Amino acid sequence: MTERDAIPAGGKATYIAEEVRRRIIEKEWRQGDRIPDETELATEFGVARATVNKALQLLAEEGLLDRRRRAGTRVAINPVRKATFSIPIVREQIEAAGLSYSHRLISQSRSPLPAQHAERLGLSTGDILIHLRAVHYGDRQPFQLEDRWINPRAVPGIEDVDFHHLNANEWLVRNAPYLRADLNFSACNAGEHDAPLLDTKPEQALLILNRTTWNDVGPITTVRLAFHPGYTMAATT
Amino acid sequence: MTERDAIPAGGKATYIAEEVRRRIIEKEWRQGDRIPDETELATEFGVARATVNKALQLLAEEGLLDRRRRAGTRVAINPVRKATFSIPIVREQIEAAGLSYSHRLISQSRSPLPAQHAERLGLSTGDILIHLRAVHYGDRQPFQLEDRWINPRAVPGIEDVDFHHLNANEWLVRNAPYLRADLNFSACNAGEHDAPLLDTKPEQALLILNRTTWNDVGPITTVRLAFHPGYTMAATT
Repeated sequence: MTERDAIPAGGKATYIAEEVRRRIIEKEWRQGDRIPDETELATEFGVARATVNKALQLLAEEGLLDRRRRAGTRVAINPVRKATFSIPIVREQIEAAGLSYSHRLISQSRSPLPAQHAERLGLSTGDILIHLRAVHYGDRQPFQLEDRWINPRAVPGIEDVDFHHLNANEWLVRNAPYLRADLNFSACNAGEHDAPLLDTKPEQALLILNRTTWNDVGPITTVRLAFHPGYTMAATT
Repeated sequence: MTERDAIPAGGKATYIAEEVRRRIIEKEWRQGDRIPDETELATEFGVARATVNKALQLLAEEGLLDRRRRAGTRVAINPVRKATFSIPIVREQIEAAGLSYSHRLISQSRSPLPAQHAERLGLSTGDILIHLRAVHYGDRQPFQLEDRWINPRAVPGIEDVDFHHLNANEWLVRNAPYLRADLNFSACNAGEHDAPLLDTKPEQALLILNRTTWNDVGPITTVRLAFHPGYTMAATT
């Protein structure tokens, strides 16, 4: 570490994290191996043990290291990386693509919750929720078909909102902060109901995103989004 | 804060984060609002300013707060939450479902990289990579169809591996740690090539995951995974 005088002050933990990352990637330290303890690394790098701790914590958060209180720190065998998916405002997403946004509310009603959703949401079959279906368009082409249930107990004031004017996605993103979201991806053939709304043929493969958000009261909303054919949803770790 | 003596030592930042989270969820502090500065919060909670900083940093990492050096801290309008997707070892995934794992290598060759991948990978069309196609089975039913390109320059030693015996997914997860991954989801109709390999009909909708991993040398591998009909991939924030 003859170069350590060149490390910018305050960047020491970042520098150590980079060096440890390099040793893992270049397999000087191999997956599953226990790495030297904090005291040894502090001596090697000529820094405080707290600085080493900070660096290793960064790498643990990235998923490169497994830290166990008694077993020490090992190079992770199968790192879990976090992929970022935001809940976008669909209008902004469409406008960012240079298209003109429009929205059509197909139906909005207070309806009894079907059994298929009840258990997953921790609610009872037949509980009255707000059910709505809508299509989001870019330059008048269907972009996304939305089938949504909203739990008014978790979102006071929502029963007075008319989603003909402001779409539910944008209202909820702006007004109903969530603590936790479940999302899952699947594919389905468009079917007789979805195909005309997305202006496609019934056997067309569609990407489906099911998403449920929760706050401290309970589920806020569960939504099934069907995207236009060819849509790709990207994430980066 | 008359109850602050009851806060466990060391848990003060967590306690403050919980209280700030509650204020946001219950809309005492609304999306877009600037929250009190660290000094004010330190006084309110009767803790050091560093403890408040730690609590706010936790909430910023969750996406609930936007922190700007000069503009102060605001409640995020559209929080970005991190959804966790690991790169699983498919064999373990199938065995965890109680099924017996098997694997069939359809082809393995050194092949010139097609243009469709070259630009995205930062490589040249015609560069020689390892191309392989394989199917993963659970109880002899197709689970996943894999079409993979591996860059031997980023993975020394890989040219000597025979993927008939150990599948490429497991070899790479265990031997090629990555720094960064891109993933994206889409749907497609099975088509004449994929349908028989997945034991389904050609028009069947399939969930497709494209994933590329990178280390400090360059791209490690890019893979297109087609899942059996009905497969759902879940994530939780």
